[in-house]
Amino acid sequence: MAKNQQNTLEKIVSLAKRRGFVFQSSEIYSGLNGCWDYGPLGVELLRNIKDAWWRAMTYRDDIEGLDASILMHPRVWEASGHVENFTDPMVDCRQCKSRYRLDVLFESYNEKRRKKVADAYRDLLTESGWNAEAFTALPREQQTEVAGDALVGDPTVFIAMNEKELLVCPSCGNAGTFTVPRKFNLMFKTFVGPVEDSGSVVYLRPETAQGIFVNFANVMQASRRKLPFGIAQIGKAFRNEINTKNFLFRTREFEQMEMQFFVHPGRDIEWFDTWKDLRLQWFIDLGMKRENLRMHPHAPDKLAHYAKDAVDIEYAFPFGWGEIEGIHNRTNFDLTRHMEYSGKSLEYFDQEKQEKFIPFVVETSGGTSRSLMAFLVDAYEEEELEKETRTVLRFHPKLAPFKAAILPLVNRDGMDDIGQKLYHDLQRDFKLFYDDSGSVGRRYRRQDEIGTPYCITIDSQTLEDQTVTVRDRDSMQQERIAMSGLRSWLMDKLAV
Amino acid sequence: MAKNQQNTLEKIVSLAKRRGFVFQSSEIYSGLNGCWDYGPLGVELLRNIKDAWWRAMTYRDDIEGLDASILMHPRVWEASGHVENFTDPMVDCRQCKSRYRLDVLFESYNEKRRKKVADAYRDLLTESGWNAEAFTALPREQQTEVAGDALVGDPTVFIAMNEKELLVCPSCGNAGTFTVPRKFNLMFKTFVGPVEDSGSVVYLRPETAQGIFVNFANVMQASRRKLPFGIAQIGKAFRNEINTKNFLFRTREFEQMEMQFFVHPGRDIEWFDTWKDLRLQWFIDLGMKRENLRMHPHAPDKLAHYAKDAVDIEYAFPFGWGEIEGIHNRTNFDLTRHMEYSGKSLEYFDQEKQEKFIPFVVETSGGTSRSLMAFLVDAYEEEELEKETRTVLRFHPKLAPFKAAILPLVNRDGMDDIGQKLYHDLQRDFKLFYDDSGSVGRRYRRQDEIGTPYCITIDSQTLEDQTVTVRDRDSMQQERIAMSGLRSWLMDKLAV
Repeated sequence: MAKNQQNTLEKIVSLAKRRGFVFQSSEIYSGLNGCWDYGPLGVELLRNIKDAWWRAMTYRDDIEGLDASILMHPRVWEASGHVENFTDPMVDCRQCKSRYRLDVLFESYNEKRRKKVADAYRDLLTESGWNAEAFTALPREQQTEVAGDALVGDPTVFIAMNEKELLVCPSCGNAGTFTVPRKFNLMFKTFVGPVEDSGSVVYLRPETAQGIFVNFANVMQASRRKLPFGIAQIGKAFRNEINTKNFLFRTREFEQMEMQFFVHPGRDIEWFDTWKDLRLQWFIDLGMKRENLRMHPHAPDKLAHYAKDAVDIEYAFPFGWGEIEGIHNRTNFDLTRHMEYSGKSLEYFDQEKQEKFIPFVVETSGGTSRSLMAFLVDAYEEEELEKETRTVLRFHPKLAPFKAAILPLVNRDGMDDIGQKLYHDLQRDFKLFYDDSGSVGRRYRRQDEIGTPYCITIDSQTLEDQTVTVRDRDSMQQERIAMSGLRSWLMDKLAV
Repeated sequence: MAKNQQNTLEKIVSLAKRRGFVFQSSEIYSGLNGCWDYGPLGVELLRNIKDAWWRAMTYRDDIEGLDASILMHPRVWEASGHVENFTDPMVDCRQCKSRYRLDVLFESYNEKRRKKVADAYRDLLTESGWNAEAFTALPREQQTEVAGDALVGDPTVFIAMNEKELLVCPSCGNAGTFTVPRKFNLMFKTFVGPVEDSGSVVYLRPETAQGIFVNFANVMQASRRKLPFGIAQIGKAFRNEINTKNFLFRTREFEQMEMQFFVHPGRDIEWFDTWKDLRLQWFIDLGMKRENLRMHPHAPDKLAHYAKDAVDIEYAFPFGWGEIEGIHNRTNFDLTRHMEYSGKSLEYFDQEKQEKFIPFVVETSGGTSRSLMAFLVDAYEEEELEKETRTVLRFHPKLAPFKAAILPLVNRDGMDDIGQKLYHDLQRDFKLFYDDSGSVGRRYRRQDEIGTPYCITIDSQTLEDQTVTVRDRDSMQQERIAMSGLRSWLMDKLAV
């Protein structure tokens, strides 16, 4: 990524830690790679994003909510294809027993290659390793040129290279010591009950979607639904990624906001288009800049095994375009598979037409953690004022961790008392910040930096006429408002 | 449990499934023991409980929020004592390789004992096995009488009994085949990265508390806090329970609402009392019947290794009293241990007194899933009316999944249109149900059964004067209200 973009990301990560949005998980123990903790401001931002999504998706006529467990019956992942397909190719060094993903080995292999090739494809190597996205985007013949067929699916080339001792183990330095590539599953597994054997293996779900599919019949029955209708869910998912990177973008533990919309076969294409538009609009309605968003359709030969059509909503992160949500036409793949594996009918009976069929599914699959990162990056701005640079997070008021700050100008004539009373009155409805220390200019800057949209100042005029100054974060304009009308004024601002 | 109490629980479990509160996890695959899914109504109830808790705990001056990851650095659990102490004793059968917890073996052993003993302690055996709570409550000498020292900590007695062939393997039927008891840890473990060895083991957190302790310094710094202050968190936790039971009460995957309050040493006792009162009051304020709640202090010799004082808030479940929240004086145990294990200072510097010390912690540790079950049981009522029995869930309006139902009386003269318009207008602020099918009496019953506090009926008078009938779930009284005032009327009701 470009130098100034890299700087932007570093500044945001630093602000996120300093002001309490995001901390490294288990930081006092040097952290746990690929896991992050949301601090006091981060958890409010996260809650606001999830709440906005939940309201947009379930406060409507045709979608029900769900919260399925993270641990599920292991057959679920056989049916979904994850046991078989959710894998990376891995090899072991026979000498020192170290294990590597093929793309990691590529890095060491690359050093051995002619300088010409290395130079030509230098931009495919990032700090944290091999840039898989950029690699995948290359034409097939260039992929082979860079990495050999071994990296694009044919293990025979890898085996041949290993036999010719072209591949060196990064750990012990021996050449030609590798086993043949094997599939490594990205699902975390654990054991239920006291015995750790294959009969007790369960997985941490790698996606929330399957929790919805296995509950399709239960939800339809309990809520007496007819097609089309959707089921929405927010929850954690886990992937044993070998290369975690880019802050909250690729992590091992993350949160998803997924909705599966069940429709008549033949109505899937129009619903796919509908949900594409609705989901893009959701980000825009919450203040994300349109120019930082794009729709990236998957080429037909790049579609996942379950998909008939797919489009990613991508955001222009400092490291490049990255997916924050996917809309997928999953056809009747999942329900068909679960019928087959469970032996339970997941068919729908259309009473009007008197026919039975397996519904099609249009999925909207959003990353909560990735969305939070995108909202954070999008809101970040360094604004040049006359005398200084102002750092401001321009969050939509609905997303801002604090809705307003109460700032008694000086501790005189009971301004603090008025401030405290106002704070406690309004706090029944809004998350507020109270700050009575330092100059008011400095207090404004502190609120700008955490994205508080309104600063309410109590000054000497307040003592006379019960009005306060409300300062707008973005325009920095001030207006006087009667204290008695503040609650409904804020309500209106947040209802936008 | 008594027969009619058993019936009550069965009725609630049945209602919970039928109406979409709680489903068995992975039900189409015969379920996953100890895991449950929240359906459309359950997820709303869960959200409302969590939201009420979050507002009560963090919309105040002295508590910050947090959302730490489920996977944490493994050293965390060494420091907390979980690796060493969070265990059950287990034995293997050398003959058939089956593994048992000692209390399970007790059941088979019990059959071999004199009838007199079995009869005397029959009430300790429940359907799902041995009642550990009741057992623990017995005086020490009676525990020994019932189960032998093997079950209360001394493995030599177990070994002696095994050698005398008094113990029979429930699986293969051989006697005297057991290994010596070993500790079995209740934490679920998994592996990070591609190699499954001891160096890559991480645990699914068995409690959320440690996520707060390891973030103490980060939160304090980012939010510029002085003592006393608290950190609150809602999140999932996992325990590899061998015996899951009583619906949502003892599960493998569950959710917690925990708050750790950091105070000056010496102020811990008063804060312990304060939080005891506040937390009990929270349940009462949300409509839980006082007579179904009790405070159960832990006897000094029953305290956990980290606690100086502890009290459980217990609820009168159909199966007996069960803990729904614990308030614990954890002293400076946790921060001291994390300082020791991480080598990072977690001391607090008191600027006024110019002294450094490790803060004490008063913890409020609530079970979200258990609270949901308690609220569900508490709300459940079968009311005898003149001609029928009415099943009603008397949820507090704040907790009710739907705040109101809109019921156009007949589809005539545009009543449906008015209903739809009202539904969509109010739905921006409230989760609502729309029902236009069946007799109005039947529609009322459907709403009673899912706890909707208000039914709004559109009738012929609505067409004349734009008023609607609002029927109260509990009193079944009706009043006429102008449609234009419904929004603020509902707001007021929900603010109580």
